[in-house]
Amino acid sequence: MILVNGVADGMIAADDRGLTYGDGLFETVLFVAGSAPLWPRHMARLVEGCARLLLPVPDTELLAYETAQACAGLPRAVARITFTRGAGPRGYASPDSVQATRIVAGSSAPIAPPDWYHFGTRVRLCTLRLSEQPRLAGIKHLNRLEQVLARAEWNDANIAEGILCDGAGRVIGATAANLFALSGGRLVTPGLERCGVAGVARAEVLAQRADCEVRDLTMTELMQADEVFLSNSVRGIVPVTALGDRRWPVGAVTRALQAHWRALGLE
Amino acid sequence: MILVNGVADGMIAADDRGLTYGDGLFETVLFVAGSAPLWPRHMARLVEGCARLLLPVPDTELLAYETAQACAGLPRAVARITFTRGAGPRGYASPDSVQATRIVAGSSAPIAPPDWYHFGTRVRLCTLRLSEQPRLAGIKHLNRLEQVLARAEWNDANIAEGILCDGAGRVIGATAANLFALSGGRLVTPGLERCGVAGVARAEVLAQRADCEVRDLTMTELMQADEVFLSNSVRGIVPVTALGDRRWPVGAVTRALQAHWRALGLE
Repeated sequence: MILVNGVADGMIAADDRGLTYGDGLFETVLFVAGSAPLWPRHMARLVEGCARLLLPVPDTELLAYETAQACAGLPRAVARITFTRGAGPRGYASPDSVQATRIVAGSSAPIAPPDWYHFGTRVRLCTLRLSEQPRLAGIKHLNRLEQVLARAEWNDANIAEGILCDGAGRVIGATAANLFALSGGRLVTPGLERCGVAGVARAEVLAQRADCEVRDLTMTELMQADEVFLSNSVRGIVPVTALGDRRWPVGAVTRALQAHWRALGLE
Repeated sequence: MILVNGVADGMIAADDRGLTYGDGLFETVLFVAGSAPLWPRHMARLVEGCARLLLPVPDTELLAYETAQACAGLPRAVARITFTRGAGPRGYASPDSVQATRIVAGSSAPIAPPDWYHFGTRVRLCTLRLSEQPRLAGIKHLNRLEQVLARAEWNDANIAEGILCDGAGRVIGATAANLFALSGGRLVTPGLERCGVAGVARAEVLAQRADCEVRDLTMTELMQADEVFLSNSVRGIVPVTALGDRRWPVGAVTRALQAHWRALGLE
């Protein structure tokens, strides 16, 4: 079911700026048995994104209501919430009076192979390098061609994700996940001031692990790390056990965070 | 009138990847008395963009037919053609079988103040710096948040455009136009291998002026130039006569290209 401004016809105006310029934001929220423990983090990021893009403040209570409608009857659901600057005349200038468009789509949550969580996943290194735009870094906006092109680099169901670096070769994350590494006994995740998306699952990990270092991470340091995992609000904590010839075990830090996810009811 | 896959209801599916990820391209084509001399250049750029984004090849004859429908009865029309990867399930991976969406919207061409062409325009320097992404540079894709944010920097009808630089301070163009400068007797326009959109009006100028140098252009060189103008497929050749305290005359090169635009029937 897709609600567009509360109406369940699943269609939007072709002159919506979300389509014409990617002028908007989105969130994908996992609901298990009607509950979404990360909901406040999703709404916080959405509100922050609206401030960054000079969009009106969304009515998060209305979004919660419509999300419940769109996901009704689904035991494990993913809600995608899209929030755009709405319809407007041609041209980059914002309309004088913005009527934002909200799109709330509910669908059954995908089932990732259970092996991923127990035995880990293989990832690859993408050749595409993320561009640096501090004005857009961190927020989950609708301009996602870099991720589309990076994801198009492989078509092998045995490869779970692609690692993305910036132009200077710093690791930023994966196409649809954030990355953590245990390096010299310290948990590390890349800073996202220049590029990348600051995931809500990443925020949850950071809240659990106040000792986690948020800083630059080179590919060399990643390859020498003792443990690597990915975080994603729908998939949760996914161990990385292979990249090229490098193998990692599923480590204790990863297992502890998986246990936290279970405790949240998000397994 | 907006045709979506040939149907005039002006609505698209809310799960179209053009909306969910900005996964597509667009062109804005000026028609005067039903004629669009730059049409072949628009179609060439669209086809090139499809190759870059791994999209199916568009049927340009069908687009011409639908564009004529959408602009019928309008003496001066702008057609916006949008071409997306179509609807798809959640996730950045392209659907196995892509059914592209084509959107053709016709509207009356905006009337720019006639003074702009005769006496020139004032522009400003945007604080936003364009990010560098060679994989997306040059093509007219739907990820336009940088342009939206740059255009939001001013709200003064006396300022026609904002000049955009890259992170290294090189001039790239304007929010919705390419830029040319006469520097030391040579016509110069910035190279667009790292960022910017390679406009069809720019291509027309380059075809007229085989001596034009395509290379890096610093703000310092721009401020010392003898003539500056902007090119845009809808607005044509727009002289720049003021930026901050700097004043330029409307020069002979600009006037000659305006005359070429008149000869094309695009005044």
